Amino acid sequence: MIGYPTKKKVNVIAKSGDTARRGLSLEEDINQSNLVFLDRNLANIHKKPTPITIVKVDYPMRSKAKITEAYFKIPSTTDYNGVYKGRAIDFEAKETASKTSFSLSNLHPHQVQHMQSVKFHGAIAFLIIRFTSLDETYYLSIDKLTDFTNNQVRKSLPYEWIKAQGHLIPYNYLIPINYLTVLDMYL
Amino acid sequence: MIGYPTKKKVNVIAKSGDTARRGLSLEEDINQSNLVFLDRNLANIHKKPTPITIVKVDYPMRSKAKITEAYFKIPSTTDYNGVYKGRAIDFEAKETASKTSFSLSNLHPHQVQHMQSVKFHGAIAFLIIRFTSLDETYYLSIDKLTDFTNNQVRKSLPYEWIKAQGHLIPYNYLIPINYLTVLDMYL
Repeated sequence: MIGYPTKKKVNVIAKSGDTARRGLSLEEDINQSNLVFLDRNLANIHKKPTPITIVKVDYPMRSKAKITEAYFKIPSTTDYNGVYKGRAIDFEAKETASKTSFSLSNLHPHQVQHMQSVKFHGAIAFLIIRFTSLDETYYLSIDKLTDFTNNQVRKSLPYEWIKAQGHLIPYNYLIPINYLTVLDMYL
Repeated sequence: MIGYPTKKKVNVIAKSGDTARRGLSLEEDINQSNLVFLDRNLANIHKKPTPITIVKVDYPMRSKAKITEAYFKIPSTTDYNGVYKGRAIDFEAKETASKTSFSLSNLHPHQVQHMQSVKFHGAIAFLIIRFTSLDETYYLSIDKLTDFTNNQVRKSLPYEWIKAQGHLIPYNYLIPINYLTVLDMYL
């Protein structure tokens, strides 16, 4: 199984190896990347905690507080934000199993409004979209998304459109989602 | 009880009136201020959700997911962040009942490191400290805090030092903690 004669097949093997090695969710990959960015003092970007409504907390004796009733809330902002090279960074990350499009139903309207608002105030706001079946992860700016929704009636972003309007985010083992390389094109 | 003859006493009355009218926690006052900033399109700053570790989730029939076991985590970042006039904003807010000092034990070391890190990357990082007994709320930059901890052995910030090194944040009914007016002095 070594020494494939064509460049193309070697690429396929390499890609398959990457996928096998990876096997982590988009969230885990982003968290891992953010840890490296923090550790190398390149950027300070964190995932926000999951928003929940706490209803009931118990205080068992000699033990820490235990939440015994809580519910997930619909997020009003994005999942990730922070600072890079003096700029506020704000993004949402989503995976899709589809090979042909990304359904806009994956985004809450509040999240889109939030990204437009932080962009207005000076942040760099974007989506990270992973096509899990294709093992490709894209950067898409909030402005491109807004252009699309202002001009199209369809409720999903075609894969080919994302590929053309966004940026493929490079993968490596240590930094699985190196979106800073894309940001550097804008900074 | 009306028509006090001296200016001083009138001030005391006015202040007492403010306190009575307020009666909200620092967190509620900041959230209210942030809502007004968002509504007026002045800034986009939010409180992050409380970080928790979710252990168990039930899915009762025909009902939404219910978290039945979860624990509070020690926060590794600050409670608030966002964007104002193109700058990343990051701060922690704390209350103290003391009239003479603010104990540094109120801050987790991780939170201080986090504020130093985001400052390094270009954010405006600060503390909001309320002396509840005095009904005074101060802005204190992370740099002032770092100076203090680098040069002092004591584990609390004296009230007089905060008053001299920080900025009193103006109060009004609609915007109880108008920290943007302090930020404007730096921008």
